[in-house]
Amino acid sequence: MKIPEILLVESQHKPGSLAKILQVISEFGLLVENLDAVRRDQDKTVWEITLEMDEDAYVNVGEKISALPNARLLGRSDRVFTRHQGGKIKTVSKLPIDNLQMLRDIYTPGVARVCLAIKDNPELANQYTARQQTVAIVTNGTAVLGLGDIGPVAGLPVMEGKAALLARLADLSGVPILLNEKDPEKIIEAVAAIAPSFGAIQLEDIRAPECFRIEAALRERLDIPVLHDDQHGTAVVSLAALLSATRRVGRRLRDSVVGQIGLGAAGIGISRLLMAYGVRDVIGADLNPNARAMLESMGGRTAELPDLMKQADIVVATTGVKGLIKPEMVREGQLILALSNPDPEIEPTTALAHGAAFAADGKSINNVLGFPGLFKGALDAGATEINDAMLFAAAETLALIAPESELVPDALNLEVHKAVAEAVAFAARHGSAQFDDEPPEDDTDAGEE
Amino acid sequence: MKIPEILLVESQHKPGSLAKILQVISEFGLLVENLDAVRRDQDKTVWEITLEMDEDAYVNVGEKISALPNARLLGRSDRVFTRHQGGKIKTVSKLPIDNLQMLRDIYTPGVARVCLAIKDNPELANQYTARQQTVAIVTNGTAVLGLGDIGPVAGLPVMEGKAALLARLADLSGVPILLNEKDPEKIIEAVAAIAPSFGAIQLEDIRAPECFRIEAALRERLDIPVLHDDQHGTAVVSLAALLSATRRVGRRLRDSVVGQIGLGAAGIGISRLLMAYGVRDVIGADLNPNARAMLESMGGRTAELPDLMKQADIVVATTGVKGLIKPEMVREGQLILALSNPDPEIEPTTALAHGAAFAADGKSINNVLGFPGLFKGALDAGATEINDAMLFAAAETLALIAPESELVPDALNLEVHKAVAEAVAFAARHGSAQFDDEPPEDDTDAGEE
Repeated sequence: MKIPEILLVESQHKPGSLAKILQVISEFGLLVENLDAVRRDQDKTVWEITLEMDEDAYVNVGEKISALPNARLLGRSDRVFTRHQGGKIKTVSKLPIDNLQMLRDIYTPGVARVCLAIKDNPELANQYTARQQTVAIVTNGTAVLGLGDIGPVAGLPVMEGKAALLARLADLSGVPILLNEKDPEKIIEAVAAIAPSFGAIQLEDIRAPECFRIEAALRERLDIPVLHDDQHGTAVVSLAALLSATRRVGRRLRDSVVGQIGLGAAGIGISRLLMAYGVRDVIGADLNPNARAMLESMGGRTAELPDLMKQADIVVATTGVKGLIKPEMVREGQLILALSNPDPEIEPTTALAHGAAFAADGKSINNVLGFPGLFKGALDAGATEINDAMLFAAAETLALIAPESELVPDALNLEVHKAVAEAVAFAARHGSAQFDDEPPEDDTDAGEE
Repeated sequence: MKIPEILLVESQHKPGSLAKILQVISEFGLLVENLDAVRRDQDKTVWEITLEMDEDAYVNVGEKISALPNARLLGRSDRVFTRHQGGKIKTVSKLPIDNLQMLRDIYTPGVARVCLAIKDNPELANQYTARQQTVAIVTNGTAVLGLGDIGPVAGLPVMEGKAALLARLADLSGVPILLNEKDPEKIIEAVAAIAPSFGAIQLEDIRAPECFRIEAALRERLDIPVLHDDQHGTAVVSLAALLSATRRVGRRLRDSVVGQIGLGAAGIGISRLLMAYGVRDVIGADLNPNARAMLESMGGRTAELPDLMKQADIVVATTGVKGLIKPEMVREGQLILALSNPDPEIEPTTALAHGAAFAADGKSINNVLGFPGLFKGALDAGATEINDAMLFAAAETLALIAPESELVPDALNLEVHKAVAEAVAFAARHGSAQFDDEPPEDDTDAGEE
């Protein structure tokens, strides 16, 4: 797996010295992800150059850069680690506790009045505590990013990242809960035991197939929203992207044959949501016969990869296997989402060059677009679950507000998450708004985009 | 139990109108806890007057105030509830997530680098996550304040209050964890399951005797600090107050006979800490024979209340029973801490009038002085437990920095908590500093204070 490397490179103030550094990088076939001037002296600048690259490339690139007349590799930047120093989240008091009266109001003796009010009417907990804005982010660390089973503590930076995003994008309080446990029944018991503390439960990075049993049991047992983000969050963003893409090429998603390559948590979640949305023909491919049986039990059919590629109008891949889709498999006019990060099953440019009508990878289809608004909407509406109507509302909203040049909107735009939350809350209160995926008339000729 | 009432009273701008309102209040024998002008118009002011009073007093006081020529009772203020609106705590991101590079550093793909570093060296979790500043505040709501078993959700405002205080006073992140469970074994399992998420565990408001078993089992099982605040937090602040008091009257705490009235969580915690500190003779009184047996198993002895009062040089009461200590029971020269809130076992003024050398109640001996610095110090030192040396260090520090006129310092002074944390961290690293409770020579004549 490629992870970004950040080089620290010093360049002399001579015209062309930066260009020459970038030229060296390009000769290794590496893309520049970001470039930052982090120090400027009188006669030189220190740059942070972010690249996706392997370890061996680092040494070679470094040597080549240092061999330039006006440049020198200083080493790796520790920017990513610096930003993680001390963790990424903290709890704060919403009130300034700086005088005796405040202390006596929010702690003893005043707080007793609020406790008694909630005892008499438990509904008031939603009004006088932060519980209805608090989401447990639960993992056992068995399927963290593309890293696999690294354990819950090593997964904590991801959970803190989710919590930081919930705070920033939806004004919700995320609480990482790490379980050093693989037995689904024990995980269910542990989460159920602490559930009274939270307004909702976000399950994260728990491997398949255990994740299915755990989520189903907790949804059954708890009266608060429970969502396994890897299944449904990713599915919502994928559905949004497919709605955007089909509308632009003038097709109906429901009438399309969808091929889902990879039937792990994400693949099963996407297949399920598409079928629930009305897609009649979903074909799945996976090496694991249990995963295939699961899709069949849900009403899908299965095929080998080459057959799937022949039959599918739309292809979604979530396998983690770089380059799995060979260019010659691409069928004229196919829509392809190759979602594995950081290396997609087929590069979008390659897919387009081989006849795909539309292609995107996991960089643009980011699940950060989904979970903050889903939880915010569910909690604002006091929903007891996140149902399909709410997932559809989130996906439709993302598709509707995507800029013309993109399948989905910008994940860092706060208005996007507000719009998703409002649509989800509306769906929670009133059911699905029955969106139609028929392409709008004035969009039918946008297929060349 | 008396809980503060806040009256909203309007007074005309006439000299003496406020004085007359306060005169009416005084005629009911009520103390004014606080007085705030919350609105000022051209010819009148609206006051929030905070009183400790019963429901029936409210009606009578209100009628009397409204009968005044220049005043009118508008009703009750909802200030306490307003301050609880939406809860008292929230999670925030420590970093501004407002550009793509930041998102890619703190979330995918950059975060993967930090995950892998922690996987290779789990110790790094303390450096690159917030876990080492995060404290679970665990309750099952069976002994909340003086309210008893009101359940975990009704106890949440207290847990949020503790979390707000941890944030404000010690820059720690408190996470309320509510368990709807009374079986100690199940509580132990639930807390152990989620323990990898936290740097420390604060047990709160769990009733005796279950609290003893739960704390002991978790201390044994977990390698992070576990502290039942009702036992040890209160004990630390009580020890601090007794160190201050004995030094001022020129006695040695270790050589004093201590009578502990009430052997619940607080009483057992205080007795245990005093014996560990070196007090050789602790006498306990409690109606519950199991509670008395527990003290005896720890090396204390027991007596009926009148006998205890006759023998004890120092009396600490934590019974929740107003007026339990009759004035005639007070022995000349006794030191008395009557800690039950809001109504002490004997009013300090009454105790002093009947010969006590020193007397205080629970208002001045506030456990907020203990837990923030205890957890901060333990976590800063990377301690795996909070041991007696650390509890002694906290108590000694509080006694040392108490102003001359008080037994303990101001709970809202941030420097106090910093000093406690530093002393606790020092004790965690180097063991007890072996404080001596011999009174300093220049203090031996301060007994009249």
